[in-house]
Formats: sequence, structure tokens, C-alpha cells
Amino acid sequence: MAEAARHDKTARQLRLLSDALDSGRLGPVKRLINTLSPAEIGNLLESLPPAKRKVVWGLVDPEDDGEVLVHVGEEVRESLIADMDEDELVAAATDLDIDDLADLVDDLPDKVIEEVLKSMDRENRERLERVLSYAEGTAGRLMNPDVVTVRADTTVDVVLRYLRLRGELPEHTDHLYVVNRRHRLIGWVALQDLVTHDPSTPINRLIDDNLTAIHVDEPAEDVARKFSDHDWISAPVVDDDNVLLGRITIDDVVDIIREQAEHQALSAAGLDEDEDLFSPVWRATRRRMLWLGINLATAFLAAGVVGQFEDTIHALTALAVLMPIVAGMGGNAGTQVLALMVRGLALGQVGASNVRALLWKEVRVALLNGLGLGLILALVVLLWFHDLGLALVITIALTCNLLFAAIAGVLIPVTLKRLGYDPALASSIFLTTVTDVMGFFTFLGLATLLLLR
Amino acid sequence: MAEAARHDKTARQLRLLSDALDSGRLGPVKRLINTLSPAEIGNLLESLPPAKRKVVWGLVDPEDDGEVLVHVGEEVRESLIADMDEDELVAAATDLDIDDLADLVDDLPDKVIEEVLKSMDRENRERLERVLSYAEGTAGRLMNPDVVTVRADTTVDVVLRYLRLRGELPEHTDHLYVVNRRHRLIGWVALQDLVTHDPSTPINRLIDDNLTAIHVDEPAEDVARKFSDHDWISAPVVDDDNVLLGRITIDDVVDIIREQAEHQALSAAGLDEDEDLFSPVWRATRRRMLWLGINLATAFLAAGVVGQFEDTIHALTALAVLMPIVAGMGGNAGTQVLALMVRGLALGQVGASNVRALLWKEVRVALLNGLGLGLILALVVLLWFHDLGLALVITIALTCNLLFAAIAGVLIPVTLKRLGYDPALASSIFLTTVTDVMGFFTFLGLATLLLLR
Repeated sequence: MAEAARHDKTARQLRLLSDALDSGRLGPVKRLINTLSPAEIGNLLESLPPAKRKVVWGLVDPEDDGEVLVHVGEEVRESLIADMDEDELVAAATDLDIDDLADLVDDLPDKVIEEVLKSMDRENRERLERVLSYAEGTAGRLMNPDVVTVRADTTVDVVLRYLRLRGELPEHTDHLYVVNRRHRLIGWVALQDLVTHDPSTPINRLIDDNLTAIHVDEPAEDVARKFSDHDWISAPVVDDDNVLLGRITIDDVVDIIREQAEHQALSAAGLDEDEDLFSPVWRATRRRMLWLGINLATAFLAAGVVGQFEDTIHALTALAVLMPIVAGMGGNAGTQVLALMVRGLALGQVGASNVRALLWKEVRVALLNGLGLGLILALVVLLWFHDLGLALVITIALTCNLLFAAIAGVLIPVTLKRLGYDPALASSIFLTTVTDVMGFFTFLGLATLLLLR
Repeated sequence: MAEAARHDKTARQLRLLSDALDSGRLGPVKRLINTLSPAEIGNLLESLPPAKRKVVWGLVDPEDDGEVLVHVGEEVRESLIADMDEDELVAAATDLDIDDLADLVDDLPDKVIEEVLKSMDRENRERLERVLSYAEGTAGRLMNPDVVTVRADTTVDVVLRYLRLRGELPEHTDHLYVVNRRHRLIGWVALQDLVTHDPSTPINRLIDDNLTAIHVDEPAEDVARKFSDHDWISAPVVDDDNVLLGRITIDDVVDIIREQAEHQALSAAGLDEDEDLFSPVWRATRRRMLWLGINLATAFLAAGVVGQFEDTIHALTALAVLMPIVAGMGGNAGTQVLALMVRGLALGQVGASNVRALLWKEVRVALLNGLGLGLILALVVLLWFHDLGLALVITIALTCNLLFAAIAGVLIPVTLKRLGYDPALASSIFLTTVTDVMGFFTFLGLATLLLLR
């Protein structure tokens, strides 16, 4: 119900917009867009076919352009950038925070980057260059170098006076960082503690030095994990010498978590999380054809196995009728194991220490399912083909294939991960290859041995 | 690489722990556990087989018990609670914040809840009862009623003195709420503004009344969406009369986002996001058998179609060899479309206004893929069976099935969502039924018409 209500609301908004666009009345569209946050505008643009997307993008307040570009997927971003001229791009990029700008830089034309750098003051230019010097997908690339630091040998009163002098703080500042003369991180002081303690309190007494800083080279997924394990709002980023380089805030982490989740969901189907819902037909075709082509190759493998048993099938065509059941059930059962394993691997819950225990559990589940479903299958086959031998063979084959599926479902993702590959991406192809090939082979093989004489 | 490194680290920790557990040296295990946050301990417990889980759970500092229970999945939570006696449970629950306690309450025995309520002061008891009066999965159930409010007609100095008197603020307090005499929400003041403005500044001037409050009945997914669309750290929760009831903080929202993502990934395989990696074999079997049973029923449907063409297959066994290719490719192509649609629906990007445009795009992609892959398939079949007619038939059948897959991939999830069902859950079963049935039917049907005479 809640789900439906939400859908209705978004759908209503989209419909309103769509109708207004169709009628060419752009005034209401513009008013609607200007009530949305950059992330919401981004979401809206992603949902529009190319022609309408272009119109709406032209109506977005130029001040929001930069933030919107940061909030859309790579592919949509490219299509939006292609619609802007150089001056617009420079203006959009100049408005951004350093960390957001760093996010965008790879997609901007060189000339635009040059202009943006020229328009920045030296401090910000150096900050941007520092952020860009770290690899994508690391803490260094996520951090914002704009941090507020204080010294330990002072008081709340002095710090408050300093903050009043300084004026506005960086967004989502919940802590001030305490550093020494060499800018090494000593600890942090919560804003909450500043406002709840007496002005004469020495900062020394408020320092929490029990903080875990993030190393600048740490992978983004680890950063995300730490944020959610420790309920952080922000965290400091340091180098090898514990020198404070910047800070990461939860809003960027939320984006990472969403991207990771989309990656996991889409890569199982051979798609990229940056895929545009309305990507050009030719590009979408090329990309999907690669994935389907790999699947076609594995399908030939399975067909080759069936081909070995053409004589058997000729003698007993019921086998052709039933063989997709054995293969398909293996695929379905294996996919269940796979889904659990991929999640477990992503959460760090599955490793060398518990693979054996997991395998043993899944093998037992497969055996029980094989016997249970095998019984149903045997009954149906008996009623359909009046052939006890065939019913027996398909039950054995099904149980065997569920076993193969369980073993493949546990071992394939673990092995891929150990070899440094993404288990979410390729596991399902390997799995269905196993369940198709083994399903056909055991069923047709057993039938040849037991039913033909 | 980064992925591998992270895996290695977690795996090493797990291995250390596992070795220590195996050797019975519990001292090091206890020391290791006490360096972890409650969320990390929860993650660790989820990764352990039942026997080891029990041992480790016994070693966790009782002070952390409550927080750990909040951080594990429903199934694991039940197994942990089953290992605790009443006194331990009461102690664990008493330590928790109201919102966390509300999360746990459904899983606690009535006697424990009674004891916990008894041990609370009246204010907190009323707060808990208020939170529990809202339905699960709504903002009311997520909120923490512990908020700091101020009046508009005062100054920064007065507020700071009040805060110093009050002492510690609720966790993740980034704003103070400004309310009127009837506790209706007028706006909020950022902690950041309090510390950067002169003490004599009137609060009136710092109020941001442009805030969007969350209605207490709003579904949790909408709350999560708003947080990530607006980069919030916290947000106020109000009732119909705009009376301030509590606030929601980003850490709880991150948990929702993770759960949603897991739900989407696991429900495609007919699993629940609360599924325990090591759930008892019998329970896991029963649950999976339900899903596999439904799949078996649809497999019979597809087998029934093949059964109509037994004579055709008897005359040309190559059809049995090749028919799984046509059905399987349809399933794979449809799964790609489905994955995109399910994501689009979850993000509110897909609705009545753009379904037609999406369908048209996917149909063109399917046609191009059908022709491209069909050509490859035709060549292989020609080389393998030296039968031009067969090559032609399989190419046409493949193209048709990719078309069916595209149409089903777009329309099935949209229709399920419109009917109020979860598109992530059942779409894949319907889809593969379509691609299997139509794949077999077009291939074998065309072969009967064109190849047999």
C-alpha cells in the first residue's frame, strides 16, 4: 500500500510534467522543476526520453546545473554535457564544492577544466589538484579538503570566538579537528560538546582521541562500511604520517551505498549501474549483445551435451519434453544460493573460515529439496507418461542437479572473489552453465544407461 | 584489487577468530570482539555457524548486547535472543535509545517487555508507547522522540546558556527545533549557526523555516529517498497539526537503504533480506521449496508446450538439441530489461508517462540483438546440422523470443507495481515463464510448419 501510494505520487508528478511538455506549455514545467532539489531534478531527467530530457534540461536554473550533473549517472551526464556550451559548463563547474568538482572533472572537456582552474584562487586550485592526485574509488577522491582545525591548548571560549570570526562552516560540520603544529591529527571535538560546556573548559578535556581516521588510499567501499558500522556523520582523512588532508561526509557515503547496491543488482544481468534508462538504441544493443553473446556460447556448450544423446531422444522423445525441467530447476536453486553468497561476500561475512560450513549446509538443503520436489516431479511424470523408470530417472537427475547447483552456488562466487574478480558480475553465467550442462548430462545419461536396452 | 584487499582483511580477522575458537582459547577471541563496534559484532555473528555463534555471543560485553541485537537480521536476532535469559534481555533492552528499543520490541518475550517498561521513567515510557503506536515501516516508528526545542523570541546567548545547563545533546544533533507554545514546528536552527554568530543575535534571524518536515505516517522508503535527495543529517517528524513529535537521523536511514537494496537483490531469487546465512537446514529447505515449487509449476507449463510437438521432435531430434538455446537466450535478454525496470521503478523513474517510450526503445534493442545474434546462431547451426531451413527457423524464433522478452521485461514489473505488488519479487518467475513457453512454441511451431512435410 505504502509502496503504491509513493509510486502514485511520483507518477502523478511525472504525468503532470509529461502532459505539460506535450502541450508545449513550458511555464508550469519550469515552476515545477524549480521546487525540486538537484538530486530530484537529476532523477527526473533520468526518467525522460532524450527529446523531453533536452527540453527540461534547458529549463533548469543554471545555478543548479553543476549539482544536477553530479547527481546523475555517467551516461545521462554525458548526454547533458553534450547539450551545454563551454560557458555554461564553466559556470556550472565553478559553483561546485571541491569534492563534487573532482567527481565531475573526468567528464568535462579539457578547455572547460582549464577555464575553471583559472577562475579559482590558488588555495582551491591546489586543493582540487590534491584531490585529483588520488585514484578514483579511494577516500582521497571522496574527501573535501575544507576542514576546520583547532589547537589543543585553548578553551571553548577562544574556539567559539574564532568560529564567529571565521563565519560559515563547511556543510555537515559536526566535529572540529584538533591538530598539532605539523597538521597531524590528534583528535576531534564535537560541536555538541562546544555548545554544552562552559566557555572556560579547556579544549584538551573535550578531545575525543579515540577516533579512527580514514587513510587516504582506503577503498570507497571500506569507507562506506565504516560509516555504517560506526554511525558516523563525518570522518577525517589522513596520510601515512597522520597528517590531516580532509574529511568525508555521510551524504557522499549514502551515494556510494546506493551505487554499490545498484551495481550488485544490475551486474548480475551484465549491466552497468551507470546505464541510462533511455540510452541510445545502438549503444544499448552493442552492450547487451556482448553479454548475450557470452551466454550464447555457454548455451552451445549445453546444446553440445544434448547433441551427444540424439539417439536416446529419438528413441524416447519424452526426454526432450522433460529435460528443460531438470536444467531449469538447477538454475533456480543455484541462483538462490548465489544471491545469499554474493550478499555475504559484499558484507564480508563469507570467507575461507566458513565456506566449508556453508557448503555443508547448502548440500543438505539441496538434498532435502531434491527429495521433496523429486517426489512431486516423479508423481507428475508417472501420471503423464505412465513410465516408472522415467519417473525414477528424473528424480535422481533432479536431486543430483540441485546438489551441483548448491556446490556451484557456493564455490563460484568465492573463487571469483579470491581471484580478484567481482562475484556479482560473472557468477550467474558460470552457474547456469554448470546447471544446464550437468542437468542435461545426468538426466540424458541416466536415461541412456537405465531406460534404453 | 581494492576489493581483494578488503576481503583479505576481513577474511584474516575471521580466520584468526575461527582458529582461536577451534583451539578453545577464548581469551584472544574476547579481546578481539571488544575492539569491534556493535554493528561489526553483529556482522561477525551473522558469519558464524550456529555453534560458534553461540560461543562468541556469550563473550560479547553485556553492555553491547542490546545494540548488537538491533544490528543483526531478524532471523539471527531470534537465535541470539533464544540464547539469553530474561534478566540478560531486560538489561540489554534497558540500555537502548527509544527508537532502537521500538525496533526490538516485537522480538522480545512479553515478560521482558513488562520488566523494561517498569524500569523506565514515565516520560520515556510514554515516548516508547507513542513510537509503538505507529505502524512498522513508517516515519513514526523510526523517529526518536528525544529532541531539543527552543523558542523564536530569544538570542544565541540564551540558547547557549540553556544548552550548557541541559548538558549532553541527543546523538547526531545538528539542528535545534523552534516551536511555538503548542509545540508546533516553526523552523530550525543549525548548531553551526549558533557557534558562528554573535551571542546577541536573535534566534529569529537564524531560523530556517524553509525546511520540509516529515509526516509521521510517511513510509520509510520515502523518508530514505528524501534524506538522500536533500543531503539531510536529521529531519523533524510532525503530525497533521504540524506538532513536533520527534526526529529521524541519517544513521537509521542508512540502515533502511541497505535493507532495501538487500531486499531487491534477494527477493529476485525468492529470498527474504532477513534470511540467516546459517539458518537451520529444515527452515531454509521449507522456504526455498516454496519458491522452487512455483518454478516447477511453470516448468511443467513449458514442458507441456514441448509435449505438443513430440512428433516433430521425433522426426527431427536436432530441434531438441537447439530448443534450450532459444528459450534460454530469451530468459537472459528479458532479465536484462527486468533489472533496468526494477531499478527504475524503485527510484520512481518509471511510470505511466514513459512506459510507452521505454517499450519502444527495448523493442528496437531486441530486434537488433535478434538479428545480430540470430546471424551467429544461424551460421553455427548451418555448420553443425547442414540444414538451411533449420538455421532460418531458429533465427526467426530467436528474434521473436527476444521481442517477447523485451515486452514482458517492460510490462510485467510495471503491471505488478500498479497492482500493488512488489515488482522485485515475482517478476522473474513470470518473465521466464513467458520466455520459456514462447521460445519453445515459436521454435517448435515454426519447425512443424516449415520443416516437416
